[in-house]
Amino acid sequence: MPDSDRPAAGPRRLRADAQRNLDALLDAARGVFEESGVEAPGQDIADRAGVGIGTMYRHFPRRSDLVAAVMAGEIDACAGSAELLAASDRPGNALQTWVNQYTNLVATKRGFAAALNSDDPALQGIGPYVRERLEPALQTLLDAARQSGYIHSDLSAKHVITGVALLCHPVPNESASFTQELVAVFLDGLR
Amino acid sequence: MPDSDRPAAGPRRLRADAQRNLDALLDAARGVFEESGVEAPGQDIADRAGVGIGTMYRHFPRRSDLVAAVMAGEIDACAGSAELLAASDRPGNALQTWVNQYTNLVATKRGFAAALNSDDPALQGIGPYVRERLEPALQTLLDAARQSGYIHSDLSAKHVITGVALLCHPVPNESASFTQELVAVFLDGLR
Repeated sequence: MPDSDRPAAGPRRLRADAQRNLDALLDAARGVFEESGVEAPGQDIADRAGVGIGTMYRHFPRRSDLVAAVMAGEIDACAGSAELLAASDRPGNALQTWVNQYTNLVATKRGFAAALNSDDPALQGIGPYVRERLEPALQTLLDAARQSGYIHSDLSAKHVITGVALLCHPVPNESASFTQELVAVFLDGLR
Repeated sequence: MPDSDRPAAGPRRLRADAQRNLDALLDAARGVFEESGVEAPGQDIADRAGVGIGTMYRHFPRRSDLVAAVMAGEIDACAGSAELLAASDRPGNALQTWVNQYTNLVATKRGFAAALNSDDPALQGIGPYVRERLEPALQTLLDAARQSGYIHSDLSAKHVITGVALLCHPVPNESASFTQELVAVFLDGLR
């Protein structure tokens, strides 16, 4: 988690209790956003974190600061997963499993896709941060899958990151499996 | 061009001179929209059509009526092209050529993608009209390509129409070739 590169996530160095509050707020916000969307009341997040709402606003003056910090954490987790998969699974499986995780990240986080195209200054860092963290992670998986003969396309990680994100846009009256089927065809197209 | 099913395109039966004006307006609007986007000044369209602006507003009270009528014409042309291709080309070529035409329709018409998700009543018919006209047209091409062994996926025309449209969303700082590369991978995924 290279703090220096991350979008707005509060001061760099915090006292231990402040760091605990920050971690609790991020955990709480992640849960509340997942259950109720990124517009959920701030009081719900502060209550779940066990901190006062003033503490929350001190760490995250605007909602978009909190959204950006939660997303940065999810992106870090997704990048970390690529390293684990590369080390522990066959290249083809690793690539498929990772793309499914990335699909879930983009498709199921309400507001994530919107945030990637947002004009909000706090959220404008998210798109670049996705590219900075996830493109190298995926490129490693793509290279390994290509070397092993699992895929033959020389499409770049940027193409795949972008293509899957576009296919994850919600389609009215269709379930999540519709999105997964589209992504599966796209992945098949790499082979 | 089954007029009864088309989104708002003015009265069904027109006197010959009114029909000429309508055709001229649609031709002019198609050109102006392509050059300047769907927000171009109405006077430019009326001037190019050689009619008064009052005549334009009589046929198309709102801009969105004119946008819907132009799009319906383009969709009709794209559906007609599928029939021609199915009759004149090998199934694999026909499918590829048609998907490229559809990609151009969606990717290069400014405002087209937005219109598909619009809340404007005049434009809400466009999404259903795409499905009604283009899904059967594409399904015929997909079935022929499957029978000939060119593709093996049993993905529906709805999936392909939707997936390609999603991949055609503009990507900041990328040229049209980026979109075409994404669509090509998706098409390869059907094989």
